Amino acid sequence: MNTAPRLGTGTGVGTGRTLADPDTPFAVVDAHRTRRNIERLAARAERLDVALRPHVKTAKSLDVAALLHHGVPCPVTVSTLAEAEAFADGGYTDITYAVGVDPHKLPRVIALLRRGVTLRVLLDSVEQAEAVAQAAREAGLPVPAQIEIDCDGHRGGLKPDAPALVRIGRILHAADCLDGVLTHAGESYFAYTAEERRLAAENERDTAVAAAERLRAAGLPVATVSVGSTPTAHAAEDLTGVTELRAGNYVFFDLVMAGIGVCRVEDIALSVVVTVIGHRPEYGWIVTDGGWMAMSRDRGTAVQAQDQGYGLVADLDGRLLPGLVMTAASQEHGTLTARDGARLPDLPVGTRLRVLPNHACATAAQHHGYHVVDSARTTDTAPEIEDVWKRVTGW
Amino acid sequence: MNTAPRLGTGTGVGTGRTLADPDTPFAVVDAHRTRRNIERLAARAERLDVALRPHVKTAKSLDVAALLHHGVPCPVTVSTLAEAEAFADGGYTDITYAVGVDPHKLPRVIALLRRGVTLRVLLDSVEQAEAVAQAAREAGLPVPAQIEIDCDGHRGGLKPDAPALVRIGRILHAADCLDGVLTHAGESYFAYTAEERRLAAENERDTAVAAAERLRAAGLPVATVSVGSTPTAHAAEDLTGVTELRAGNYVFFDLVMAGIGVCRVEDIALSVVVTVIGHRPEYGWIVTDGGWMAMSRDRGTAVQAQDQGYGLVADLDGRLLPGLVMTAASQEHGTLTARDGARLPDLPVGTRLRVLPNHACATAAQHHGYHVVDSARTTDTAPEIEDVWKRVTGW
Repeated sequence: MNTAPRLGTGTGVGTGRTLADPDTPFAVVDAHRTRRNIERLAARAERLDVALRPHVKTAKSLDVAALLHHGVPCPVTVSTLAEAEAFADGGYTDITYAVGVDPHKLPRVIALLRRGVTLRVLLDSVEQAEAVAQAAREAGLPVPAQIEIDCDGHRGGLKPDAPALVRIGRILHAADCLDGVLTHAGESYFAYTAEERRLAAENERDTAVAAAERLRAAGLPVATVSVGSTPTAHAAEDLTGVTELRAGNYVFFDLVMAGIGVCRVEDIALSVVVTVIGHRPEYGWIVTDGGWMAMSRDRGTAVQAQDQGYGLVADLDGRLLPGLVMTAASQEHGTLTARDGARLPDLPVGTRLRVLPNHACATAAQHHGYHVVDSARTTDTAPEIEDVWKRVTGW
Repeated sequence: MNTAPRLGTGTGVGTGRTLADPDTPFAVVDAHRTRRNIERLAARAERLDVALRPHVKTAKSLDVAALLHHGVPCPVTVSTLAEAEAFADGGYTDITYAVGVDPHKLPRVIALLRRGVTLRVLLDSVEQAEAVAQAAREAGLPVPAQIEIDCDGHRGGLKPDAPALVRIGRILHAADCLDGVLTHAGESYFAYTAEERRLAAENERDTAVAAAERLRAAGLPVATVSVGSTPTAHAAEDLTGVTELRAGNYVFFDLVMAGIGVCRVEDIALSVVVTVIGHRPEYGWIVTDGGWMAMSRDRGTAVQAQDQGYGLVADLDGRLLPGLVMTAASQEHGTLTARDGARLPDLPVGTRLRVLPNHACATAAQHHGYHVVDSARTTDTAPEIEDVWKRVTGW
């Protein structure tokens, strides 16, 4: 994996290789689709007059993130301190760490704050608030903290009327650490119509704003009211009272998002290149060298109206092969089958294919980096690899 | 991650840290259980008078592998060329690459052979056999190849009576590349009784031997007759005609293997340390910082009589917390719930727990390495981390 200049910086140097060259399996990012997905939400946020704070947990890549803001570091959300540290190293100074903070990790938070990074932490308990306040006092600097609000019973957070909300706000405020509130409509991943997503976005906003108002009514300052998920960010019509919108998956999108209608299959910017290594005509199978190690075990579409198996299959140029689905996976084997009466295509041993993932965050996590192509450029050969971008890994 | 001497080499130096120290989540290997699992199958193989060729795809670690053979490199099976190359670097010279070979990867195979490594490839088609034979002729050296045999319809391979079998054998033999046959009873992962597994092992042996006999009857030399999977390796009673036994998962075991009865839960040597970051008493949830990024999305026990969610939960010493199960996962959040009428234990924010995986191969793959403890040693503190072992990643 090289450390070539970022595509976003426009070197256009290329690698001299195509998708026919590296040994499979490997992950591919279509920079054209990625840019289009980024522009779509940026335009929405502008229309809604709300700041965008993209979640970089999907791509975990400084190079992908560079596409977000034309090279000038923007506010970002992260899911691990390893991401926060890598993005701080990359010049990002406004970072929200959107997983409830484990007090044991506060020394790394303090270290980032001391480097001049505004790193906001998230919490939903008195214990965490006391730990943050104590760490801030010991360090002699504020640790900006947001109170996690539960808007749909997805995982963490307090209901806006929870007795602990104001108490936590006071503990944080006394240590000059209260930054605001944050909520995430995680259940919107199961909102199958535009109307359901619009209502989920409304509820997400209403819940966050209600929590903020309750804190303000208690005399506490609330600077940030943060909401977002990829489905609600694309459905919100009015974000009055909200100061920032978060979304992460939208940069790549995936079959789960296509399945609920947030994007089209043609918007999916991440795929995995695999090679045909065998055939089992007696079972109607084509066997590839891309198993769950390359795709992840994520089967998010299994609960959707159209189960897409481990992924839909395209040719090396990215054109879908109608009816061909990756339906089973071993560690390093994928099984492709035909559905909907489609004929199993004739794909000899050695044929390379691209498999579109159920869940981009999970599939991307199986790889160290991305081979970058640009589907807006047409060539007579296999798509040219313009760059290789690294991912941040670990915690 | 350090590169301290291997535990298997008996330095006993230690890291001066305990499981209470590194930021969570992180993977832990219990060296005591690992050794016990290794000894169990080694004793079986000795009793069955068959050579053992462990599959290193589960741990992907030279340090774990060192426990297999008291420091003297033994024959191993790998699932990627990256593993083959890493094990070759570690002094292993007898390696079987047990995924059907993509002809594009043959240059790396040849490079390993030229380094003096006996690297066997696997194939089940005329096209692959011709590619291997041609590569061998061009390189001026034999490329030892095994023909994959399908014993239970699990994924790749030829039935022993497939018309192509002898033809492939002849193509390989003409280039001095025919090494033997290999089969894997992948469906034995769904064999829920000892009798079913015994029959699966018998069928695995019978099928491999039948294929070998058919090749021999056609005048072709068959040196290797390789069989194995963790369930059948622990069930086989007679391996007459078989030259080697493969198994991989058994080094760590997991809840899927415990669920079919191949091991006990107390044999599982891999776990993930997570920290409690919140509580949702209204839902009966404890929230941790270990989500699917740390555990993988593998839910192998979902098809078993007892679905174990994303994993059973133990305390930091490895003692199971009765009835506590990780039932949901976001990227960096785990949700623990109580079942079977168990009371949700009182686990304050900051409490560390160990989650046992559904599928060790998949969970291990989410981590760069292992923090090593030895449950045979008792201490007054949290278990001491004796070493940190690296994993091989990528392809």
